Amino acid sequence: MFQPPTFTRGSLGSPAEATVITTVLTRGPVSRVDIARMTGLSQAAVTKAARPFLDAGYIEELPNRERAATGAGRPASPLAVRADREFFVGIKITSDELIGVVTDLRAQIRHSRHRALDSHVFDHVAAQIVGLVGDLLGQDPAYRERTHCMGVALSGDVDRASGKVRYSPFIGWNDVELAAHLTRATGLITTLENDVKALTVAEQWFGEGVDTASFALVTVGAGIGCGLVIGGRVVSGAYGVAGEIGHVPVADGGPPCHCGGRGCVEAIASTEAIVAASRLVAGRDLTMDDAVALARGGHEGVREVFARAGHAIGLGLAAMVNLVGPERVVVSGEGVANYDLFEEQIRQTFVAQAFAAAANCPLTIRPLPFEAWARGAAAVAVQTLFTL
Amino acid sequence: MFQPPTFTRGSLGSPAEATVITTVLTRGPVSRVDIARMTGLSQAAVTKAARPFLDAGYIEELPNRERAATGAGRPASPLAVRADREFFVGIKITSDELIGVVTDLRAQIRHSRHRALDSHVFDHVAAQIVGLVGDLLGQDPAYRERTHCMGVALSGDVDRASGKVRYSPFIGWNDVELAAHLTRATGLITTLENDVKALTVAEQWFGEGVDTASFALVTVGAGIGCGLVIGGRVVSGAYGVAGEIGHVPVADGGPPCHCGGRGCVEAIASTEAIVAASRLVAGRDLTMDDAVALARGGHEGVREVFARAGHAIGLGLAAMVNLVGPERVVVSGEGVANYDLFEEQIRQTFVAQAFAAAANCPLTIRPLPFEAWARGAAAVAVQTLFTL
Repeated sequence: MFQPPTFTRGSLGSPAEATVITTVLTRGPVSRVDIARMTGLSQAAVTKAARPFLDAGYIEELPNRERAATGAGRPASPLAVRADREFFVGIKITSDELIGVVTDLRAQIRHSRHRALDSHVFDHVAAQIVGLVGDLLGQDPAYRERTHCMGVALSGDVDRASGKVRYSPFIGWNDVELAAHLTRATGLITTLENDVKALTVAEQWFGEGVDTASFALVTVGAGIGCGLVIGGRVVSGAYGVAGEIGHVPVADGGPPCHCGGRGCVEAIASTEAIVAASRLVAGRDLTMDDAVALARGGHEGVREVFARAGHAIGLGLAAMVNLVGPERVVVSGEGVANYDLFEEQIRQTFVAQAFAAAANCPLTIRPLPFEAWARGAAAVAVQTLFTL
Repeated sequence: MFQPPTFTRGSLGSPAEATVITTVLTRGPVSRVDIARMTGLSQAAVTKAARPFLDAGYIEELPNRERAATGAGRPASPLAVRADREFFVGIKITSDELIGVVTDLRAQIRHSRHRALDSHVFDHVAAQIVGLVGDLLGQDPAYRERTHCMGVALSGDVDRASGKVRYSPFIGWNDVELAAHLTRATGLITTLENDVKALTVAEQWFGEGVDTASFALVTVGAGIGCGLVIGGRVVSGAYGVAGEIGHVPVADGGPPCHCGGRGCVEAIASTEAIVAASRLVAGRDLTMDDAVALARGGHEGVREVFARAGHAIGLGLAAMVNLVGPERVVVSGEGVANYDLFEEQIRQTFVAQAFAAAANCPLTIRPLPFEAWARGAAAVAVQTLFTL
């Protein structure tokens, strides 16, 4: 049975408890009757599984409006999460800064803080994270009292189960036991996750993934990644590789990619690829901001670079949708400001290459504030609390 | 509870029964203890769920060698399928012939028969199927007595649940209620399935898919398709489209495809595409057999056509493996005789484009006799028997 105060492994006693709390968390307020219907559990099982969470104050019974209205019938007693019963820290590590947030039980951001990162040495990064956690928890006495779990997200090959960064090229780490270190240093139970997967978890529990058995979250920026949920579960790949939409080869004989392949989506549409191609057509050194400014200013060559990037992304999306057939796709990423230069070409190519009815799969293209990555990490911490 | 003699919907009373019979079918002989361990059911639940299948003679208890050997300990009592307790008909419909098989409970082929198909008119095709079923069941009195289910497989958009061919271009059918018609006409409970999915079911239950949670079966021939199993379940796609590896765009600006896209794997590597490209380089009309003969005879241009096809297949495989990360991949198809012209290029391109550890995913490339398609249909019928 779920035992909030101890936070030792095994506090969730039954799969039914995990099912019930997840349902209230992601779809509440929801009545026990509806939970039973949605999950296939008996009503008695739902009532029993909900009890420890009610007792510990994670969920509450809302006033029963249906019975009040009709004056008769069985109570529908909707259960709702008490969002401020518990708080969570989420940290995203990028190349040059840490982004940290405190969220509530519904992964709503309550506070956020950034910290510059001027070295990738492990001790430095770890100390900065510990400092950032202190800053965040210092914002409100309730945070110190009711925060037990932290999620940390970064790009690369991350082993959530062991809490290890297996390999993360951007920060130059190999086999680093980050989670254990941070758990000791902060007193928060720390879960490590790949950043795209963390974002996918946030979407699955608290975003467009609620009520869908399958969806894809594609992130476009320095890298191009994809979190896939199929049959209600995040696909992780038998060899630790999945969702590598950035390394779908779409242009046979195209530009070489850092992965060793050629014509990968990332070799055409990553920030670095766009900047490199824009330099060539502009005939001078420039940054991504410069490239965006040139394209917006009507520079045909640079506009063409962005269109080619959108086309490559559209091809990658079509490949993914033709293969796994998700119910919906969200395209997002740090290049928030630049979607006007991409979007039309992404959609046009996707529709042209999606096979038959797969073209019906709706694409949502939307910006991704940096805080959203940290929120993804916090969503992983929420998962951790209820699967301890 | 499972009730074999009636074959009405609902004869499988509990999910535990389905789990136990599936485990014995796909992994037997296996002891109740091991079934409990594999499935998470209690031993008592396994014993209870196995009972009706033992009573009906679908499974049997093998002599307990372990106890005999040691003279002590709890009986391990392995359960095994009685393969000839029930037979199944599987039919594959192709453009110019029907292929039919009778299999046993383990989907082993006992008899096979072909029938030419000289019209695609529904009544004609249905009558030919009914005739073929008669031929097959006439081979052994036991078949007539112990066959209750038939599977029928064809390429196209097939709705297994309703038993309808929604759209099948090769035969020119739209919204045809084939399963209901055949159930009435043959007395066999008929299940319709897309041919690649049927083959995937056979592989999942009785082939390389046993013991793997995720694998992919890629078929290369007139079309290029893929059955995907992720998390133990065949991926079917939210819009009815999944596994369309033939329509993964791998060559930006490449040859137009019948799907409306460009540079799809199928536009480069299908039989039709290979024949068309070979005609161009040979400068004369020719068939697939001619193209194969020319390539084997050392015709450089035609050899190059096959190499390009293998390269396109390798790119499609890399796209699929980078996205979904299956544990293993089987590449098969009707072009049995031609793998010598393909295989090296398929493997070389796959390894070059697979992302990091995804390159460890083993590729099995093997021929696919036409009977295997019909066996796939029979495997679907086996599934049907136990999920009635």
